[in-house]
Amino acid sequence: MKAVVYQGPRDVAVKNVADARIEKPTDVLVRITTTNICGSDLHMYEGRTSFESGRVFGHENLGEVVEVGLGVDRIKVGDRVCLPFNIGCGFCENCERGLTGFCLTANPGVAGAAYGFADMGPYQGGQAELLRVPYADFNCLVLPEDAAEREDDYVMLSDIFPTGWHATELAGLRPGESIAIYGAGPVGLMAAHSAMIRGASEVYVVDDQPDRLALAEKLGAKAIHAKEGDAVEQLLNLTHGRGTDRGCECVGYQCCDHHGHEVNHLTMNNLVASTRATGGIGVVGVFVPQDPGGQNDLAKQGKMAFDFGNFWFKGQKIRTGQANVKNYNRELARLIHAGKARPSQIISHRLSLAEAPEAYRHFDARDDGWTKVVLKPAA
Amino acid sequence: MKAVVYQGPRDVAVKNVADARIEKPTDVLVRITTTNICGSDLHMYEGRTSFESGRVFGHENLGEVVEVGLGVDRIKVGDRVCLPFNIGCGFCENCERGLTGFCLTANPGVAGAAYGFADMGPYQGGQAELLRVPYADFNCLVLPEDAAEREDDYVMLSDIFPTGWHATELAGLRPGESIAIYGAGPVGLMAAHSAMIRGASEVYVVDDQPDRLALAEKLGAKAIHAKEGDAVEQLLNLTHGRGTDRGCECVGYQCCDHHGHEVNHLTMNNLVASTRATGGIGVVGVFVPQDPGGQNDLAKQGKMAFDFGNFWFKGQKIRTGQANVKNYNRELARLIHAGKARPSQIISHRLSLAEAPEAYRHFDARDDGWTKVVLKPAA
Amino acid sequence: MKAVVYQGPRDVAVKNVADARIEKPTDVLVRITTTNICGSDLHMYEGRTSFESGRVFGHENLGEVVEVGLGVDRIKVGDRVCLPFNIGCGFCENCERGLTGFCLTANPGVAGAAYGFADMGPYQGGQAELLRVPYADFNCLVLPEDAAEREDDYVMLSDIFPTGWHATELAGLRPGESIAIYGAGPVGLMAAHSAMIRGASEVYVVDDQPDRLALAEKLGAKAIHAKEGDAVEQLLNLTHGRGTDRGCECVGYQCCDHHGHEVNHLTMNNLVASTRATGGIGVVGVFVPQDPGGQNDLAKQGKMAFDFGNFWFKGQKIRTGQANVKNYNRELARLIHAGKARPSQIISHRLSLAEAPEAYRHFDARDDGWTKVVLKPAA
Amino acid sequence: MKAVVYQGPRDVAVKNVADARIEKPTDVLVRITTTNICGSDLHMYEGRTSFESGRVFGHENLGEVVEVGLGVDRIKVGDRVCLPFNIGCGFCENCERGLTGFCLTANPGVAGAAYGFADMGPYQGGQAELLRVPYADFNCLVLPEDAAEREDDYVMLSDIFPTGWHATELAGLRPGESIAIYGAGPVGLMAAHSAMIRGASEVYVVDDQPDRLALAEKLGAKAIHAKEGDAVEQLLNLTHGRGTDRGCECVGYQCCDHHGHEVNHLTMNNLVASTRATGGIGVVGVFVPQDPGGQNDLAKQGKMAFDFGNFWFKGQKIRTGQANVKNYNRELARLIHAGKARPSQIISHRLSLAEAPEAYRHFDARDDGWTKVVLKPAA
Repeated sequence: MKAVVYQGPRDVAVKNVADARIEKPTDVLVRITTTNICGSDLHMYEGRTSFESGRVFGHENLGEVVEVGLGVDRIKVGDRVCLPFNIGCGFCENCERGLTGFCLTANPGVAGAAYGFADMGPYQGGQAELLRVPYADFNCLVLPEDAAEREDDYVMLSDIFPTGWHATELAGLRPGESIAIYGAGPVGLMAAHSAMIRGASEVYVVDDQPDRLALAEKLGAKAIHAKEGDAVEQLLNLTHGRGTDRGCECVGYQCCDHHGHEVNHLTMNNLVASTRATGGIGVVGVFVPQDPGGQNDLAKQGKMAFDFGNFWFKGQKIRTGQANVKNYNRELARLIHAGKARPSQIISHRLSLAEAPEAYRHFDARDDGWTKVVLKPAA
Repeated sequence: MKAVVYQGPRDVAVKNVADARIEKPTDVLVRITTTNICGSDLHMYEGRTSFESGRVFGHENLGEVVEVGLGVDRIKVGDRVCLPFNIGCGFCENCERGLTGFCLTANPGVAGAAYGFADMGPYQGGQAELLRVPYADFNCLVLPEDAAEREDDYVMLSDIFPTGWHATELAGLRPGESIAIYGAGPVGLMAAHSAMIRGASEVYVVDDQPDRLALAEKLGAKAIHAKEGDAVEQLLNLTHGRGTDRGCECVGYQCCDHHGHEVNHLTMNNLVASTRATGGIGVVGVFVPQDPGGQNDLAKQGKMAFDFGNFWFKGQKIRTGQANVKNYNRELARLIHAGKARPSQIISHRLSLAEAPEAYRHFDARDDGWTKVVLKPAA
Repeated sequence: MKAVVYQGPRDVAVKNVADARIEKPTDVLVRITTTNICGSDLHMYEGRTSFESGRVFGHENLGEVVEVGLGVDRIKVGDRVCLPFNIGCGFCENCERGLTGFCLTANPGVAGAAYGFADMGPYQGGQAELLRVPYADFNCLVLPEDAAEREDDYVMLSDIFPTGWHATELAGLRPGESIAIYGAGPVGLMAAHSAMIRGASEVYVVDDQPDRLALAEKLGAKAIHAKEGDAVEQLLNLTHGRGTDRGCECVGYQCCDHHGHEVNHLTMNNLVASTRATGGIGVVGVFVPQDPGGQNDLAKQGKMAFDFGNFWFKGQKIRTGQANVKNYNRELARLIHAGKARPSQIISHRLSLAEAPEAYRHFDARDDGWTKVVLKPAA
Repeated sequence: MKAVVYQGPRDVAVKNVADARIEKPTDVLVRITTTNICGSDLHMYEGRTSFESGRVFGHENLGEVVEVGLGVDRIKVGDRVCLPFNIGCGFCENCERGLTGFCLTANPGVAGAAYGFADMGPYQGGQAELLRVPYADFNCLVLPEDAAEREDDYVMLSDIFPTGWHATELAGLRPGESIAIYGAGPVGLMAAHSAMIRGASEVYVVDDQPDRLALAEKLGAKAIHAKEGDAVEQLLNLTHGRGTDRGCECVGYQCCDHHGHEVNHLTMNNLVASTRATGGIGVVGVFVPQDPGGQNDLAKQGKMAFDFGNFWFKGQKIRTGQANVKNYNRELARLIHAGKARPSQIISHRLSLAEAPEAYRHFDARDDGWTKVVLKPAA
């Protein structure tokens, strides 16, 4: 089968690799029809992780079931399914509580597994023609009858829509409250879309890229242009000095100051400052335990100069971690089905698998207008 | 009236000051019968805060109502009342949600007010014969008929028992879970007492002072002697490598390493390491926005070298802040009344008001056996 | 002052009565500018309660503060305020937990007080020129700068908007879920408006009056015409036999069958049947402990032939009771301010106080198009 | 293998039946070492359900795994496991939310499956030498190293301990609150044990059998003798007229009045009366959709004369349904392991499988001292 293979820093190619296949009785095999490039693919693409050469990328996957293992009960050949990027077993202590992003079975020794991801288990990615799905009865979301028609919406259930939603959940957002979202990348935009759907009264999105902020405004949010003045000050002014009720970190450890220098504590300390006393902060932007390429000693150790004093004095809360996709994807699928959510509106490019290497180049360069790329292996 | 007056760093005296009195129609006046010295009094006593010379200490107060204002509805002369250390108005946005530790009215410009406390409003403390209680209908907890008999238990409802309880609540403790409490001072001991009452399966208390750890064991907890080996390692071994479900910070910014040097990030980074993935951490130890006396530049700015990478990767939660005493004091009073809680068992000294200066000296020196001092102004 | 006075069953008159005035230091006096007639006024109007002749109706009130008591701290003359229909003290065990609809102080011996309401304390209603507001710092919601411009939206914060919202909260509605609301009166319509704002995927409203169902559709809900076939069957068909996730009772004990006969268990048993296993049911329609005018012995005793067997077997939940308005009115005010909620769109009539008797007649007769009447005492 | 077989009303026999065996790749086979007789077995034993002649009883099972299916991942031969009475698939909409008592897969068309139970699917019971366990990776709780030593405690994790705990959870019990438990059968006693562990301040148990109430007192609860005066009145007196914060129904539809007549609404209406306004009621006693043997028309239809008027007026909540055992069994196992829970203390008889028929007779006759019977098939 054809697949997008990592060959080394900033080098991917579409190559023939061994077909994915059923390996255990609880697996199914899916023919991929849509698979996305994600911002977190770029960490690996840039060679900043332990991702091995020769592995296949792709953790945002949707397709049609073509074969099922002997121990599979619920999933049938022909089902159109969307796969959560995190792989859960369904029966460990974490999975049974809904913490499927922290499965203790699928990647022994680490809490959490994913397709085509550094340090997240031996699973291949879905930027390919076929994908093996483990613990399939648990992991597959079977899509409703409009699956084909709304495929570009449903594919967002694999990661960025639940991840954006998770950010608002971790922040503790309740209807009528205000929220500030730092980062207008795909996840930040999905957090804004989620906050609007959940009945936030004011949704602010902070970024320095005008094209992304324009998308935020299209989704109904208010844009805070970080280049036009201190974001914290702008937010405090807009909230009469009170700060927002909630805040979301959708940037991660590579956040940059005005000069483009990485300053890993920048967004977090801004969030402490722009969130009201007793407010909640949700962090879905990726932070890493070690970062050998970090800008200073603290960063290399995965640490930051965090404003703990203000954080404590204000009695705030921080909740973190990757999204437990299965906690959200059923309800979000219903919102798509009912026409109340339309995550596909942030897609900038729909390409063939063959065009993946070019897409990676543009997306990695943060080229204007390359917001979200969707690949169609079956096209 | 007689009161414990702050005269400068490490200098308090019992002096005659102007009688406390009703100032507003919603005030009551309380004759103090029991008032405690708290670990946070020491921050002020040591001159490490902006606490003004001439002010009266004391935010853990219990006594009898001797006069009520014209606008007071519920409280009657003769009621025996315990006063939460935080002063709430009862009607601001925060108080009405139960966030009485972050009242927006009682100390304008800051979220939160308290008796006899630096930066927490103009209120005098209760280490005195009389105390003015503002918004009295809201702030007074009227005690049941065994008030006098169990006075040394009920006085703990003013601060340390609810604060210890709050630590377990912020950590998200559920029955059957394990919890590690860092710090065996009065608040840490109360957190251990709380965790036992709430049905934790394993309660660990970390400290380096044997006398305090002995008290922890008396309360039913398991002592982790920090001097006998790395606390994180001990906890990981005891939990088969898994970590505890929950963790509590009951130390604050002045936590010290083995050599007695202040290292403000020590406890927090240990908590990230010894708490399981997706676990919760509650922080009631005090951290401050600025600390001019801090050991290094980060500490002076109220910042710390926090292990955010591991924290995020493990998908943990941190919730912080002073206890909203009123959220807990009714139910905790019932537990005392029913004989199921006995917070007074950690009291080491019961003294007269005149003995306060000596008590401050011993308590500040962390002299052996000076765990918790209770003063009796009316004795 | 002029006021709408109850004179006996189906007899109200606009008469001169003694001016409302400050009675306690914690009162304020409000000049009413908008006050609504509520469906629950009709229970009293019809003589079916113990409401005393000579009393003034009106528990949905908004106006301007004209005088404040000596013990009032926060509220100022000139503030434009909306008053929750339930009167809370702010300091009893229930109020301090946010259960302001069950205040233990304001109406001694009963949990709950209200303006101009049978069995809810001695308070006069606000269908008058002036209103005395007790515990004013606690009860007044001060409106923002667009108070006058959006007065017909903000007045709905006194009762029906929070009550409709409460129905969805009691039902446990989460975003993406489906919900069936029984009753398209003002409260049911507000429940539908609330469910839309909160991100429900499907909102169904059941009623038999086409004009009210048309309003439900205007709000974005799907109308279920109870006259066109069994409502339960329609709902089960629309949900592929599964039932809705949540259900709301917005009718009350006077619910009627197709022939117009009161059958007090009708809506509740339908809800059990049309809600999925483990689903939640919220009940804000009024049920009464005794109903001497009831249709049979059970009804007279306030009892009903409830389908407890199915309810238990399906593992459902029922939560009930009048709305704790203060739990919701701040956030809902923000949604109005931000233009995301517009409860005034269900108003059918804006009348002077003098027109109140005629309005009562039409509203009580359920005359076509008399959905919601707003009175303007100051006009 | 030998098994306890139902032969018709009040007629069971220990007979040889076909060995249980692996039927699907996700099954395991368990050799039963302990299995209990449950109060709900008696409904079937008495012939009051559709339970088929020839079927094997037993849904409270513990044993050792002797064979595993090809699709089983986690469970190994030799594991000592306790089986939740409800059988969940682990991947349906309900199971993935933790509602394993309402699995949509294991018993198609009905939400919920169990071993050896009327209307709960085709599964045989475990009062036998062997038991087939479906979806074994999901359903088996692997016990710790003290499994054998504390077997009589751990077997209670299959049903009555989690069910009693669930009652307190459905009631919404928080530490420091008071709770009244109606019914001192095994489930009610486990509810009392649970409430004590969870830090209730006052635990009352209502029953009319002195031997059972003596056990309640042994567990630390206060006994309310229903024969010595109206239970509601006693509870109101003990709570100074306020009522308890929470209440539990642990009796079911066969509750009886003083004369021993079944009155299906008796306990529920008492609970409404003895629970405070805004309090919560949890119902784990079984109620059935139809009861052909009921005492009157309402009862035959599974309905009751419920005091809905008082229930609504008091703003109470009712939550119902069988326990989702897997929600609780891990944490409760830890409490047993730590010595903080000891559910076996209510066992009255430990018998061989051959003695089962006699045990059924005594237990069904409510003979004095027959509280809880444990069978040992392997002995």
